[in-house]
Amino acid sequence: MNRRSVFTKAEFSRRIRDVKQRMERASFDLLVCQDPANMSWLTGYDGWSFYVPQCVLVHLDEELPIWFGRAQDEKSARLTTGLPARNIVPFSEYLVQNPDGHPFDELAELVRLRGWGRARIGVEMDAHYYTARCHAHLVKGLPGARFSNNGDLVNWARLVKSEPELALMREAGTICSHAMDRAIGKMHPGVPQNEVIAELYHAQIMGVDGLGGDYAAICPLMPVGDGTATPHLTWTEAPLPQSGLAILEIAGVRRRYHAALTRTVHFGKPPQVYLDIANAIVDGVDAGLEKARSGRTAEEVEAAWQSVLRSRGLKKESRVGYPIGLAYPPDWGERTVSLRPGDRTELQPGMCFHMMAGVWLDDFGVAISESFVVTDKGGEKLCASPRELIVVE
Amino acid sequence: MNRRSVFTKAEFSRRIRDVKQRMERASFDLLVCQDPANMSWLTGYDGWSFYVPQCVLVHLDEELPIWFGRAQDEKSARLTTGLPARNIVPFSEYLVQNPDGHPFDELAELVRLRGWGRARIGVEMDAHYYTARCHAHLVKGLPGARFSNNGDLVNWARLVKSEPELALMREAGTICSHAMDRAIGKMHPGVPQNEVIAELYHAQIMGVDGLGGDYAAICPLMPVGDGTATPHLTWTEAPLPQSGLAILEIAGVRRRYHAALTRTVHFGKPPQVYLDIANAIVDGVDAGLEKARSGRTAEEVEAAWQSVLRSRGLKKESRVGYPIGLAYPPDWGERTVSLRPGDRTELQPGMCFHMMAGVWLDDFGVAISESFVVTDKGGEKLCASPRELIVVE
Repeated sequence: MNRRSVFTKAEFSRRIRDVKQRMERASFDLLVCQDPANMSWLTGYDGWSFYVPQCVLVHLDEELPIWFGRAQDEKSARLTTGLPARNIVPFSEYLVQNPDGHPFDELAELVRLRGWGRARIGVEMDAHYYTARCHAHLVKGLPGARFSNNGDLVNWARLVKSEPELALMREAGTICSHAMDRAIGKMHPGVPQNEVIAELYHAQIMGVDGLGGDYAAICPLMPVGDGTATPHLTWTEAPLPQSGLAILEIAGVRRRYHAALTRTVHFGKPPQVYLDIANAIVDGVDAGLEKARSGRTAEEVEAAWQSVLRSRGLKKESRVGYPIGLAYPPDWGERTVSLRPGDRTELQPGMCFHMMAGVWLDDFGVAISESFVVTDKGGEKLCASPRELIVVE
Repeated sequence: MNRRSVFTKAEFSRRIRDVKQRMERASFDLLVCQDPANMSWLTGYDGWSFYVPQCVLVHLDEELPIWFGRAQDEKSARLTTGLPARNIVPFSEYLVQNPDGHPFDELAELVRLRGWGRARIGVEMDAHYYTARCHAHLVKGLPGARFSNNGDLVNWARLVKSEPELALMREAGTICSHAMDRAIGKMHPGVPQNEVIAELYHAQIMGVDGLGGDYAAICPLMPVGDGTATPHLTWTEAPLPQSGLAILEIAGVRRRYHAALTRTVHFGKPPQVYLDIANAIVDGVDAGLEKARSGRTAEEVEAAWQSVLRSRGLKKESRVGYPIGLAYPPDWGERTVSLRPGDRTELQPGMCFHMMAGVWLDDFGVAISESFVVTDKGGEKLCASPRELIVVE
């Protein structure tokens, strides 16, 4: 029945085995996973239903995960997962956005009915859709259980990608480079910003070489002019300026796997300072990629990058990167490792990161990022876009 | 400085006054609003930064709201809101995805510093991004405060749209109809599904008649074949079938205001039963629209629709509609009223709804929805797409 997933049953079994080992080490009997990427990674489930409470349960004593969600999405679970009917459990429709009852009242009932009412339960306290109310209803409905934060246990299990996952990441990189190229080709002074974004979306979804594209966990970001001093502005319909900067941050997405990329355009002849910053960023990324090999740590990648920046009199205060892969809105980051001082996570082949290399000053910013896979020889870039300040005259 | 918002300072003042009156009635001194649509409605703030904790505070004694967010987004707040610098408060970068500290530790500190440590605080317990961990850190940091669920107080304040908002809703409807028309024009047997979606995204973002489009809070949904039995599946790259059904659910978006629409296509000559269901849906929507006038209630709209369905031997179990307007991912619904039995909310002119009219059976579904504004004379449709089962031969 699993018509959509590209992964074998053996791959799902391996993932669940890995998660159960982590659960044993962390002393959990039961995990409640609401992060849509975790739900998908554990079962193959795919659908835009994460705006209502739903989750996947993993119990040490249960061979397969259990999908719990809205009744009208039950059929999606049957079509996109390989789970048996017994492991697909819908909640009652009247509980959707109900000020009194909550879907997780029925989740608590399900847990009790399976005999897990006194389990040690790990929840994702900071997953985007695990709201304060989800937690309150679940805790109230399971007074005999012991709850604690599972520390994004499944996100950590997702950190090292399998070969089939890496194949999708590389395809995502190809789609990303192509979409960036198409969008930049549209960027000329006077062109309405939304025309660039329309072209970009078209390229993202068409994909390339018969590899269709998927929706991105973050919409295209395109700060323009003094907006480049801040990273998360979206487009308007104003025309692109005759001179000055614009930054484009996008992802290519292949079956929910993301490769992200940022490039900066200057309209007209750029001041030397912008060119110098762009060169520092590219050199800093090279220094980071060189360090991004097995056995090195997350903070060493950041230190290598920061050292180049400092040598040019620059700095970037926020972390310079985060893991990427399978993702749903609102973030393509995986919320585990950060490429920043103090993060001593040891790098392993198959980990994938977005090195969000940029310099943001008071009134402008320049960013030239790369997505990469950790290998024994350093970071392997997933995209192949020109690495420079792109000048449009 | 507020270069992006289309709303006047007077409109923002009116909104804040309304919210403060609601706070007084509900006995709150302080609101913590994390729903990105509430943040935007209160201040004009716009940017894809809602994947990290952030919020807008409204206190009875403070004239203007306070924006609280990530340091790198502070400049976005300066560019998109009209707030004075004193009311824009960044949190420290190292707290982003930090397993020990949390941005809301600094939010608690801000609340204490302003002298509100013993306030009666209303939080959005079920807003998508107000996680269990956000709540836990805020409560811990404010031991003298009294917390309770504000029951989506600001969402309720957003229910009746102002004239400038209605102007955007109508523009969104125009964009939506146009995008639907373009997508359906692409739908032919054998066409890869992602080609239809690429065309659709292009049309959504280009907009129409010089009105640029914005990103939608939900990606285009396109269940095909037996997938039509469930509403939230997205596309694949498989070709559209030679015969059978496909459903397309989309929104047109104008400056974050959404008009949503669903249409159903049949490839080849449709069985009579599909035509009968489509007719029942269109008639049911007409019956609902007729009731959607000032003074009637939400449940009366649903009852009118349900009565037509029942007379044709059909039923739809889930609620048939919800309010729409200003929205950010993951939902374009406003999480307040539901068009379902038991919801006695009295309709007022300027309320906007998506009547998600469809029938989902075990192995297929048909949906033909409308977005509308409540008026004295009934529901005024925001879109103008043909209302029928669309047959592609």
